[in-house]
Amino acid sequence: MDRKIGIGILGLGVVGSGIIHIIKENKEMLYKKIGSNLSIERVLVQDIEKDRNVTLPKKLLTTNPDDVLKNPDIDIVIEVIGGTDDAYIFIEEALNNRKHVVTANKDLIALYGSELHDLAEQQGCDLFYEASVGGGIPVLRGLTDGLVSDEIQEVMGIINGTTNYILTKMDEEGVPFEEALQDAQKLGFAEADPTADIKGLDAARKMAILARLAFHMNVALDDIETRGITNISLTDLEYGKQLGLTMKLIGMAKTHNDTVEVSVQPTFIANVHPLSAVKNEYNAVYVKGKAVGETMFYGPGAGSLPTATAIMADVIHVAKNIQLGITGKSGPIIERSARLSPPHLRTSSFYIRLHVHDRVGSFAHISQLFQDMDMSFKRIVQTPMKKQQTAEIILVTHQTSLESFTNAMNKLQQMDVVKSIESYYQIEGETV
Amino acid sequence: MDRKIGIGILGLGVVGSGIIHIIKENKEMLYKKIGSNLSIERVLVQDIEKDRNVTLPKKLLTTNPDDVLKNPDIDIVIEVIGGTDDAYIFIEEALNNRKHVVTANKDLIALYGSELHDLAEQQGCDLFYEASVGGGIPVLRGLTDGLVSDEIQEVMGIINGTTNYILTKMDEEGVPFEEALQDAQKLGFAEADPTADIKGLDAARKMAILARLAFHMNVALDDIETRGITNISLTDLEYGKQLGLTMKLIGMAKTHNDTVEVSVQPTFIANVHPLSAVKNEYNAVYVKGKAVGETMFYGPGAGSLPTATAIMADVIHVAKNIQLGITGKSGPIIERSARLSPPHLRTSSFYIRLHVHDRVGSFAHISQLFQDMDMSFKRIVQTPMKKQQTAEIILVTHQTSLESFTNAMNKLQQMDVVKSIESYYQIEGETV
Repeated sequence: MDRKIGIGILGLGVVGSGIIHIIKENKEMLYKKIGSNLSIERVLVQDIEKDRNVTLPKKLLTTNPDDVLKNPDIDIVIEVIGGTDDAYIFIEEALNNRKHVVTANKDLIALYGSELHDLAEQQGCDLFYEASVGGGIPVLRGLTDGLVSDEIQEVMGIINGTTNYILTKMDEEGVPFEEALQDAQKLGFAEADPTADIKGLDAARKMAILARLAFHMNVALDDIETRGITNISLTDLEYGKQLGLTMKLIGMAKTHNDTVEVSVQPTFIANVHPLSAVKNEYNAVYVKGKAVGETMFYGPGAGSLPTATAIMADVIHVAKNIQLGITGKSGPIIERSARLSPPHLRTSSFYIRLHVHDRVGSFAHISQLFQDMDMSFKRIVQTPMKKQQTAEIILVTHQTSLESFTNAMNKLQQMDVVKSIESYYQIEGETV
Repeated sequence: MDRKIGIGILGLGVVGSGIIHIIKENKEMLYKKIGSNLSIERVLVQDIEKDRNVTLPKKLLTTNPDDVLKNPDIDIVIEVIGGTDDAYIFIEEALNNRKHVVTANKDLIALYGSELHDLAEQQGCDLFYEASVGGGIPVLRGLTDGLVSDEIQEVMGIINGTTNYILTKMDEEGVPFEEALQDAQKLGFAEADPTADIKGLDAARKMAILARLAFHMNVALDDIETRGITNISLTDLEYGKQLGLTMKLIGMAKTHNDTVEVSVQPTFIANVHPLSAVKNEYNAVYVKGKAVGETMFYGPGAGSLPTATAIMADVIHVAKNIQLGITGKSGPIIERSARLSPPHLRTSSFYIRLHVHDRVGSFAHISQLFQDMDMSFKRIVQTPMKKQQTAEIILVTHQTSLESFTNAMNKLQQMDVVKSIESYYQIEGETV
């Protein structure tokens, strides 16, 4: 008699349909790989009568969550409804009923991953969420399994397709932010309300998950300095081109001794760095390990089938664990709660754009300030501007601490010769 | 009492030393992840007295293979001596003695992977070789686990660091092949005898392994069309730049229905394709799945610590399997032996460089030939050359079958107006 593993699905949108599609299309292959049949038992929907892309016997659909969460035939619950309200209640209930859970829900895992892992472990259940970061890219498992023996030093990701599409469009076609955003919305790469994407919140949630797995510490969303892309000007992108730098919204997590810095911010990436070539809606996660050096995982960061693929990788993982009797050990080992790196430990090089009074000595004044602060430059570009006797100065610093940089910015702001600090960005990767 | 898993290592070169380094440095972390201590029991070396970078009690070293292969305290044998003679005998012997085997030996696995997997399965032993392709990049496990539910359609890799370094150097600095090779040798990116690298043989072995895992079929080395980089001229790289194409040594495996094509050859990659940005000694494997779409795994293709990291990921995998009692299932499911795709199923676009007699009608003749054959062009560039009334013509075709292309090339060669076919290359990725 064939063994069977019962699957319940919460939600039948594009991802849910994709999962059903994959399970049906690859029945034999899946059986060969798992040694059991995956059987779709019930699917929670809002409206049973709605027309759908996927053909499924109507009796499998239900509007009652308990038909999934308390169904004795269901071993694995796949959550693809999203959000943090119902989804949280459902996942908690599923775990309480000793169902294993696979989810793509980055918001939920970023916020409650730690406690849900605790509950899962208590219940002897698996909880996986490969699809929550980087869509179809198997990056979480790459981190936890592939680089398991290594000491991760740095994780940097382009983990939001919407903003990467917008920045690519701005950079390559010279269109301003608003226009690039509208274009992304037309093509379905941005939602009607794009706030979470363009403000960097979506990326911050994914960074919370990546940092937890990479560094074995719980990072709260509040610990993540987050800056969106709404204020990026084409002027900076243009200077970036001249300097061999490409602007990306970068989620970054680095350790310094026992501390960690986690941020999401627009960052100039040197063109020799592999992240600089990640364009349009694509995602990539760059990982630097003490032993392995630099690796990068690249692929589609969203989309129903890529997401469904990642979910299925998790489902198969759980299915194997069930048969091996080793479920309930899916959580990352949390060694310590996050201690944030103080500014003097955080180093980077920086790009600064200033407007100064175009008069004799302005440049010398500014140089003197930085010299006094022991900060040195890689590149300085001064351009007279047409209007108002103003000059524009671009400074690219050598590596310096965030503390020194902040001090320098404060002093700059107080200088008479400085009209305004137009923008500043961290730079990652060696500039030429 | 602490549980213990005994490790034996065959070879103590840079990789062997790296493994010992990782096991010592990460003792606690490894224990947390595995729930057992990894204990290095014996290490096979050629010369016990030799000075080494790694400190290890001398009593652990041995020149007698049986001290490792038949040692009852050893559970996992790590083979890092390389080659296919002794290594084969040792691995066979290890498996016969029910030791699990982890190896970085691509030559051995490409040639004998199938039979060694059979033996491992019979003996209930694991056999893993993540480090054999792409050094520290966790690409094999990405293929077999991360994309497990997907149907892989295409695998393309830059999987030889030496040739990628040479091609990058030629492309960016305009130095000819011989000079770039010498430079690579000086920097340690190429061996004294670089034949296996520059002729594409090393890449072909890795493709045999990748194709087996991606498509569940045994691909023999003889099935892999292999063309090295020794004849690449700067002229073609220069035209490539004008056309938005970068030359890479590409290992490619694609399925067409139930057949497969596997090749290693210099290929022009369109600059929009993520593989085009993989430079210097770096490796990357691009995977196209029916559901996931395009993903890419990037990282260092060689080096002692990256390789050691991949080996350690395998060791930890085995260690977990041992404790779960599920060893002996590491082999890929081979569904069929490879049937090679016939030329009419293999499609690509092509770059062709011709020398023709620079006289009225030459161009029209050639156009007519292709029109008669129903092949169309994306780009045609004609340049008069200084000498001998010759013109150089660059043709970039639309997608066409290899069969049509070969016919066209044969006819071209017979045409009076054609002096010589200087070069031709496949193109991957959409050209602009």
